[in-house]
Amino acid sequence: MNKARVPRIEVIAVGSELLTDRFQDTNSLYLSRRLADLGLRLSFKTVVGDESEDLGTAFRSSLRRADLILIMGGLGPTEDDRTRETLAGCLKRRMVFRPEILKNIEARFRKRRIPMPPSNRKQADVLQGAEILPNPHGTAPGQWIRQGRKMIALLPGPPRELIPMFEDHILPRLEKVKQGYLIRRVLKAAGLGESAMEERLRDVYPAVPPNMILTTLAAPGDIEIQLSMASRDNDTESLSALDRVTDMIESRLGSCVYARDNIRLESAVAQLFGLSGWTLACAESCTGGLIGHRLTDVPGSSAFFLESIVSYANPSKIRRLGVPRAVIEKHGAVSREVAEAMAEGIRKTSGADIGLAVTGIAGPSGGTFRKPVGLVFIALAHEGKIHVVRSVFPGNRNQIKAQASQKALDILRLHLQKTLRRTSRGKGRTS
Amino acid sequence: MNKARVPRIEVIAVGSELLTDRFQDTNSLYLSRRLADLGLRLSFKTVVGDESEDLGTAFRSSLRRADLILIMGGLGPTEDDRTRETLAGCLKRRMVFRPEILKNIEARFRKRRIPMPPSNRKQADVLQGAEILPNPHGTAPGQWIRQGRKMIALLPGPPRELIPMFEDHILPRLEKVKQGYLIRRVLKAAGLGESAMEERLRDVYPAVPPNMILTTLAAPGDIEIQLSMASRDNDTESLSALDRVTDMIESRLGSCVYARDNIRLESAVAQLFGLSGWTLACAESCTGGLIGHRLTDVPGSSAFFLESIVSYANPSKIRRLGVPRAVIEKHGAVSREVAEAMAEGIRKTSGADIGLAVTGIAGPSGGTFRKPVGLVFIALAHEGKIHVVRSVFPGNRNQIKAQASQKALDILRLHLQKTLRRTSRGKGRTS
Repeated sequence: MNKARVPRIEVIAVGSELLTDRFQDTNSLYLSRRLADLGLRLSFKTVVGDESEDLGTAFRSSLRRADLILIMGGLGPTEDDRTRETLAGCLKRRMVFRPEILKNIEARFRKRRIPMPPSNRKQADVLQGAEILPNPHGTAPGQWIRQGRKMIALLPGPPRELIPMFEDHILPRLEKVKQGYLIRRVLKAAGLGESAMEERLRDVYPAVPPNMILTTLAAPGDIEIQLSMASRDNDTESLSALDRVTDMIESRLGSCVYARDNIRLESAVAQLFGLSGWTLACAESCTGGLIGHRLTDVPGSSAFFLESIVSYANPSKIRRLGVPRAVIEKHGAVSREVAEAMAEGIRKTSGADIGLAVTGIAGPSGGTFRKPVGLVFIALAHEGKIHVVRSVFPGNRNQIKAQASQKALDILRLHLQKTLRRTSRGKGRTS
Repeated sequence: MNKARVPRIEVIAVGSELLTDRFQDTNSLYLSRRLADLGLRLSFKTVVGDESEDLGTAFRSSLRRADLILIMGGLGPTEDDRTRETLAGCLKRRMVFRPEILKNIEARFRKRRIPMPPSNRKQADVLQGAEILPNPHGTAPGQWIRQGRKMIALLPGPPRELIPMFEDHILPRLEKVKQGYLIRRVLKAAGLGESAMEERLRDVYPAVPPNMILTTLAAPGDIEIQLSMASRDNDTESLSALDRVTDMIESRLGSCVYARDNIRLESAVAQLFGLSGWTLACAESCTGGLIGHRLTDVPGSSAFFLESIVSYANPSKIRRLGVPRAVIEKHGAVSREVAEAMAEGIRKTSGADIGLAVTGIAGPSGGTFRKPVGLVFIALAHEGKIHVVRSVFPGNRNQIKAQASQKALDILRLHLQKTLRRTSRGKGRTS
């Protein structure tokens, strides 16, 4: 690939609040994704405050190093909004008042039946020679400026104004500089740590061609693997290269892979329930409702999810699920035996096909030497059999809850996959 | 305040992955908070990829405009880690091999019983004249460089290496340039939209002194207001200015304020349960377990939270909570009557003092003209009385669940506050 032809692109987010620990520039994530769809990549991201001096410094740095500059924010009507004038100064252009913009702004205020503050008048000023980008969702229009071979866009900061303007007015202009299309594959995997994944993929990395990008994003118990490459025109060669590496990764990760698509584990579980026709009920102790919450995040989950009993206190385990008091007294509420009784209890009392139960110690207190904080038992009852898994999760209370819910959903997924494969021989894959 | 004395500080995050839509530089949020604690502010944030040319461009821009530069990342052993050499080039310094660093790195590998790859050797190279910052959590040491009046720190990218190094070696060095201490106040409020808050605070904004910063962070149903100012030495004048504005805001927002501290609504609810000694049980339909999940995120919540029945299917509402089948058939599962029956049902069957119930339509399907997606009934049963609130929340399934859980917790909070105030006359505030 000819390096000299790749345009250097910089995104500049303007706003003093973006330099505090309270706010984060997230617009640039959207922009980088849309640029990637055209095969383009960002070279620099800058965040700068509202002061003219800093703004000017940032704009001048960017004009030296970038071919396309996307500036977001600082187009409002207040004293602090100085993007327009400052850029005009850097480009040595004057500001021009455009009465037709003022008319639009006034019309917006009339519609909302409030008088236009005089300060909004300055939003009708544009840099000499700029093309105006209409903003149907706010008062500040965008601007598109060419300076020699450089292209500069002034865009509003609020996402609901920025995104439509980018889609309608910037993307069509970028079609000319685009490098191709970005084609992608995604794999999602559960039940594997980051280093275990690295280990299993050790021989895959050298097989990734230089024009393909492999990125991995690991959360506790959940891994996302993304493969992408810029393709001139969706050519079959690139597509088959992507498929080849995707297959390689899938064979290395085996049953840990739960989707060839960017979905969450709860959605994969919901799909399997859809295939099986079975129903589910949960008994949650340490996860406190998180499993029910995750499953009900999936639209249509009411088709298989009957109920979850968050039996936090022991009397709830006894009365709602029929866990024998003696079993709790003998083994403790966090034990293999209680997990089993909860799973079978919720299955029976709910009338669901499958009962899933979790009991554990989320901490920070309640741990002992034999039963440390993070100890979790997960039990699954189905067709007369009960299967229990013991885990010890690291981290704080929230992390332990998150990992326990992830593990429980993954146990459910593996069980459904295995059982579906057995009951429909020949249809499913055999491993 | 003398502007010329404020040092310009830039953070540069190095890594091509940070320019994609997959990853975000979050280290800079931590750095900006710690700098703010010293009364210092960031002037620029830059993200740049791994290519030498771009790196050099970013470093040179920064050397022109900043007095203190914190560079994170690109100190690893791979080909892509070029921060050291590139900065050396920009500063016209040569690289010096430091055998004592190599010994440390070798020792780390020996401990883990794996051979050191030859590529790690380059991590023992430092810029001529740099002070070495030890890294007990990784192989790459940090570096501290003075060039004229400028200060430059090279720091590792992974947070678990960066944070201890910043705390132990950068903060003490910054004590000399610090502008004072940052003093803060936080208010948290619920049950108020962003524009309603703006409206109520209209007369507060002009009363905020110029050296005080008021920032608001609004999530659906939850608002955080932060006041901060740099103070030379925690002087009583600054403290009382902060208190004066905080009191003003609190009086404007009234009972919507749930904390004068940066806590979540569920923690405020848990504190009120601690004061009251009452117990709680929930019956959740459309929130799917989210209320139980949020309450059990609070350590010690088992003291008051007995159970939550996620009665997603109607038979669960009938059997677990005793909701009469006829009431569901007459009014529908999403109705004032069913919410009432759920709240009273969970209170009675659980033996808790308070029963809280939620039923609604989270969508995307299931809405009708009279009962649209987003319609939610929340009922609270306590001491023989049942109180029901009807809401219609905008947004998608997840947003509706989030807002319904927030509203339910807020109804609980207001009820507890009111009831506690009534039962302990004279102790609490009267409004």
